[in-house]
Amino acid sequence: MKIPCAVVGASGYTGAELCRLLLGHPTFELVSVFAKTSAGQSLAKVFPQFAGRADMTLMPFDVAAAGHARLVFSALPHGESAAVCAALVERGVFCVDLSADFRLRDGAEHARWYGEDHAPALRARAVYGLPERHRAQLRSARLIANPGCYPTATILATAPLLDARLISPEGLVVDAKSGVSGAGRAATTAVHFSEAGEGIRPYKIAGAHRHTPEIEQELTAAAGQEVRLTFTPHLTPMSRGILACVYATPTDATRPAHAYHDALAAAYGKEPFVTVLPPGQLPDTAFVRGSNQAHVAVAWDERARRVIAMAAIDNLVKGAAGQAVQCANLALGLPETAGLEGVAFFP
Amino acid sequence: MKIPCAVVGASGYTGAELCRLLLGHPTFELVSVFAKTSAGQSLAKVFPQFAGRADMTLMPFDVAAAGHARLVFSALPHGESAAVCAALVERGVFCVDLSADFRLRDGAEHARWYGEDHAPALRARAVYGLPERHRAQLRSARLIANPGCYPTATILATAPLLDARLISPEGLVVDAKSGVSGAGRAATTAVHFSEAGEGIRPYKIAGAHRHTPEIEQELTAAAGQEVRLTFTPHLTPMSRGILACVYATPTDATRPAHAYHDALAAAYGKEPFVTVLPPGQLPDTAFVRGSNQAHVAVAWDERARRVIAMAAIDNLVKGAAGQAVQCANLALGLPETAGLEGVAFFP
Amino acid sequence: MKIPCAVVGASGYTGAELCRLLLGHPTFELVSVFAKTSAGQSLAKVFPQFAGRADMTLMPFDVAAAGHARLVFSALPHGESAAVCAALVERGVFCVDLSADFRLRDGAEHARWYGEDHAPALRARAVYGLPERHRAQLRSARLIANPGCYPTATILATAPLLDARLISPEGLVVDAKSGVSGAGRAATTAVHFSEAGEGIRPYKIAGAHRHTPEIEQELTAAAGQEVRLTFTPHLTPMSRGILACVYATPTDATRPAHAYHDALAAAYGKEPFVTVLPPGQLPDTAFVRGSNQAHVAVAWDERARRVIAMAAIDNLVKGAAGQAVQCANLALGLPETAGLEGVAFFP
Amino acid sequence: MKIPCAVVGASGYTGAELCRLLLGHPTFELVSVFAKTSAGQSLAKVFPQFAGRADMTLMPFDVAAAGHARLVFSALPHGESAAVCAALVERGVFCVDLSADFRLRDGAEHARWYGEDHAPALRARAVYGLPERHRAQLRSARLIANPGCYPTATILATAPLLDARLISPEGLVVDAKSGVSGAGRAATTAVHFSEAGEGIRPYKIAGAHRHTPEIEQELTAAAGQEVRLTFTPHLTPMSRGILACVYATPTDATRPAHAYHDALAAAYGKEPFVTVLPPGQLPDTAFVRGSNQAHVAVAWDERARRVIAMAAIDNLVKGAAGQAVQCANLALGLPETAGLEGVAFFP
Repeated sequence: MKIPCAVVGASGYTGAELCRLLLGHPTFELVSVFAKTSAGQSLAKVFPQFAGRADMTLMPFDVAAAGHARLVFSALPHGESAAVCAALVERGVFCVDLSADFRLRDGAEHARWYGEDHAPALRARAVYGLPERHRAQLRSARLIANPGCYPTATILATAPLLDARLISPEGLVVDAKSGVSGAGRAATTAVHFSEAGEGIRPYKIAGAHRHTPEIEQELTAAAGQEVRLTFTPHLTPMSRGILACVYATPTDATRPAHAYHDALAAAYGKEPFVTVLPPGQLPDTAFVRGSNQAHVAVAWDERARRVIAMAAIDNLVKGAAGQAVQCANLALGLPETAGLEGVAFFP
Repeated sequence: MKIPCAVVGASGYTGAELCRLLLGHPTFELVSVFAKTSAGQSLAKVFPQFAGRADMTLMPFDVAAAGHARLVFSALPHGESAAVCAALVERGVFCVDLSADFRLRDGAEHARWYGEDHAPALRARAVYGLPERHRAQLRSARLIANPGCYPTATILATAPLLDARLISPEGLVVDAKSGVSGAGRAATTAVHFSEAGEGIRPYKIAGAHRHTPEIEQELTAAAGQEVRLTFTPHLTPMSRGILACVYATPTDATRPAHAYHDALAAAYGKEPFVTVLPPGQLPDTAFVRGSNQAHVAVAWDERARRVIAMAAIDNLVKGAAGQAVQCANLALGLPETAGLEGVAFFP
Repeated sequence: MKIPCAVVGASGYTGAELCRLLLGHPTFELVSVFAKTSAGQSLAKVFPQFAGRADMTLMPFDVAAAGHARLVFSALPHGESAAVCAALVERGVFCVDLSADFRLRDGAEHARWYGEDHAPALRARAVYGLPERHRAQLRSARLIANPGCYPTATILATAPLLDARLISPEGLVVDAKSGVSGAGRAATTAVHFSEAGEGIRPYKIAGAHRHTPEIEQELTAAAGQEVRLTFTPHLTPMSRGILACVYATPTDATRPAHAYHDALAAAYGKEPFVTVLPPGQLPDTAFVRGSNQAHVAVAWDERARRVIAMAAIDNLVKGAAGQAVQCANLALGLPETAGLEGVAFFP
Repeated sequence: MKIPCAVVGASGYTGAELCRLLLGHPTFELVSVFAKTSAGQSLAKVFPQFAGRADMTLMPFDVAAAGHARLVFSALPHGESAAVCAALVERGVFCVDLSADFRLRDGAEHARWYGEDHAPALRARAVYGLPERHRAQLRSARLIANPGCYPTATILATAPLLDARLISPEGLVVDAKSGVSGAGRAATTAVHFSEAGEGIRPYKIAGAHRHTPEIEQELTAAAGQEVRLTFTPHLTPMSRGILACVYATPTDATRPAHAYHDALAAAYGKEPFVTVLPPGQLPDTAFVRGSNQAHVAVAWDERARRVIAMAAIDNLVKGAAGQAVQCANLALGLPETAGLEGVAFFP
């Protein structure tokens, strides 16, 4: 039996990716799509890739209409999403929020980064939607806070090394590279083809990027002590992809090189969506494009006594829509991989 | 019940795309993959996108081993593919040849363009694998000559207008643009990122490209008289995609503009993989990337009295692997869309 | 002695390219830059490539201030540029207008394409700034109508063949491909990296693009009879470059193939900025990027009896700012190549 | 009076960039170009951007022929270049070696990274060609070891902070991103447009990249104590550019944020080719493309107590050919900026 679901905020890239994945899902059935400025237009007009594949019209959001679905994915901007999710959860709808509104467990910390606590009442009920870290809670979740793209890549690369106390929680440096779609569909000079193509640049560095506290929250949990890290995002001339390189100090510099790889292999051996690359092979975002796979690897720099953990994901799939579906599968008791088996699209 | 199938020539882009599609197919089961220089390596080593998704080793081609499959896709180079297909067809295996070896019905014409007639005995039994033109024969085909990427786009845009006698078969001009993956995975200076990126260039123009006779063969059949056309391919700085623009003289310059669109709409109204875009919307390869869809459109240039027919496809899907699966679905009595429902990857 | 010059509309791509070229010019000295929304900001803020190279502030346009220059380049939008140029010409300033306001000699035709005749009084005094066609008049010009990028490429490829009556003026088809910078710096979804990258698309086809009449005006002059042509522009995933492919019917299909190349070679043998490629070599926009060179070639399609003329230019240089400087050199009695000797940037 | 100069190894990207710069140089006159496999072909055949701009034929290297020049740039591969330079220096020719053969002052260290000491006799006479660090010695140099692209960017961003003892020489992490042209013109699958486009990947990490000792040599000199650092290069989907991000521990975490910027500003205030961006602005390789400029910046991450120094250069200009010309200008007593005034080519 099909489970009716809806996408709110369907006119952005994450919304479109949700629609793509849901149209190919064996159990979820996309029954309605909502958008603000594009309301009234057909999905195929806004995103011609759906021409001939989905005959739907974007509607202005209406809680009653959306409430007919059993499962709603909200790809609204932060600050707007919380209220929509609250209204739906109250009606008994399963909600996956892809905004940042519920990601931080500490409302004061959320307020510090986002101006105010957008969801004081519901914050405690939300489960952080990284199945590789919170699978058990996700199985009984009604409200899921889907992680950011940078946090997903960074946490997947780093957390098992902290869990196993192989690296120090102090002095972590995260140098991450994102495809341009991560900036959203809104037209700005920064994402103009002639400005973002043929050039790479850091932005919102030195603690200015809002994904910082989210990464720290999860790594703090892994480390068992507070993590404060340096996070440098980059706009990279590719449409999709996140590559995170994490630089860490080993807790024991005499440990054999394979210990780091072994820890990742042990952590992810049974994970359907995390592949630990064989030693010597390094992640490349090109090989996860369009799929829900994360490729992770770790290297030991003997000369400089540094651990380098790396992860590559597709920012719109494992970094957003794919992970949302993965979480929803868990919450609704379906096989975790349902609708997510697609191999990455290369070249 | 699953139908075992194999891919020969799996280490190229078309081979990889066949593997991607077959791994997601509900009935076909990829049981073996063959390659020449990469034989002995794992598929995931040669194409890391399969890491964690397909645990297979590339084998050197062996007709007995391949013959265990009920269906074989050959992505070998032309000249090499004919013999492999012949051996397999003789054993009762269904064969889809993605090379040019069986595409031209006239052996002498094949020899003119490819040096010799590589398949004199079997040529007559091969069916040209463009379902929108040869669906009936494909249902009983054992050997399918999968069309080239340029011909697929060009024929889909043009044939219905010739069928309906709306355009003259004389003086057709085809200006087509291909993504770089169309040149194959072999490393050459021409496909170096620094040479093929940030520049567009025509190549093999003025009747030099081997897709010319294939296009002419099919359009001649549509027109009921010999077609000789100008074909200009371009290497375009994108990985995937074919855009074909066809310039034609109308048979009646007083006809209303909508007649051309109507003809395409009538021809493709029930086609699962051809979308006639609404008037005013033009094809963009970005919106068919990774899917088996063709987006077609036609415009009437009132000022210059010219018909402009256009089609966009993904060269590796509708232009190669996807079309091969579509044809195989027909030949083996499956729903034509099986395994091909995926929406295009955008952005 | 230096000649003081100014750029009006310096905050767009063409304006920036003018500044780049003028800063490297031996005789012209860039003394002031004007812009509208960016007025008050430093040039280096708006375009960081000028940091450390030009310490100038963008000023709101003022005719008195601009009038201190002996030469002004206007890169304002059409409709706005005419009045600015009129005011400056009246003060005795040499003006190169890079908008469309003075390009069409027929005011009624201008009004048909641009809504009204923006420059009735001055239209007759403007010289169309294509030195390869109008060098003599440019030497005494005070007001220069700098050609569009598509017209420059198209006319250079085609006019000598019409001059020599080698091709028919009837039935010309122009299929042209432009880099994304041709759309300007304004942020729109169409030029978003994630939309314009990895895809090619036609736009404003079938007589809708405003460069059509400009091309026709010049080719009509060459042919000695009215030319009506089909013009199809494409947005191509590269930042710079125009490639024009022109399809023509020969006036004599029995003529030897080399006749077409010979005509181009004769026309351009002494031209400093037009290179006729040797037979067999085809234009590639990558090889003219950043330079004022046009690469042209022509082929004879014996099978289909069609002439294919091609040209590649950099849309911002020979297609805009470089050509403007070339024209200004002529008008002010300098060597035509002054400041334009730079070799293309490749790769 | 012109100074005759030659380029050896002119068929690669660095060689072509040298030719481009030398053709625009006011005093150096390019008189001969040498290459191995392309010998006998015209420069314009191998690199069509020179068509119409330089009528030269690539010759097989011959010390007598090259010796007619007063200045030779060698862009040969390491291991091959040393002997060529030795022969030329012996004849009294000024030599700029763009290979790695003379970069490391310690022959044993060179042998450790490159297999053997390729230049034991001449090593001591070579001057490391980074004018911002070794200007005085370069003024009297006869043999110049032109730095690698990654070292140039990394050293420019970091050395002044070490000079001023603002950061600790221990625990430095360099995360650097290179355009694909850095891999050279040789055709490999790794640089195929369809593999290198739309993806970013680290390579030769954890002390495997040969630019590591070169960076360490110069930073050790700045720090006054041995530097061992972590260096992670990435292949980035752009043709040109190096962005280096250097993560460092401050020597005093209570220092005000502006101290780091002030140190860079003091170091580079009079440098013609290093621009310290104003606080808040970050380097982007797009804005130095085609120019000899380096854009540097530094930020203080208060939260994580980390200094982040950044530099962007064009790998083929300030990272290779431009820097070579800058050094040659110094060695031959010309103005340092001669022939290098070109503004970056954007967009």
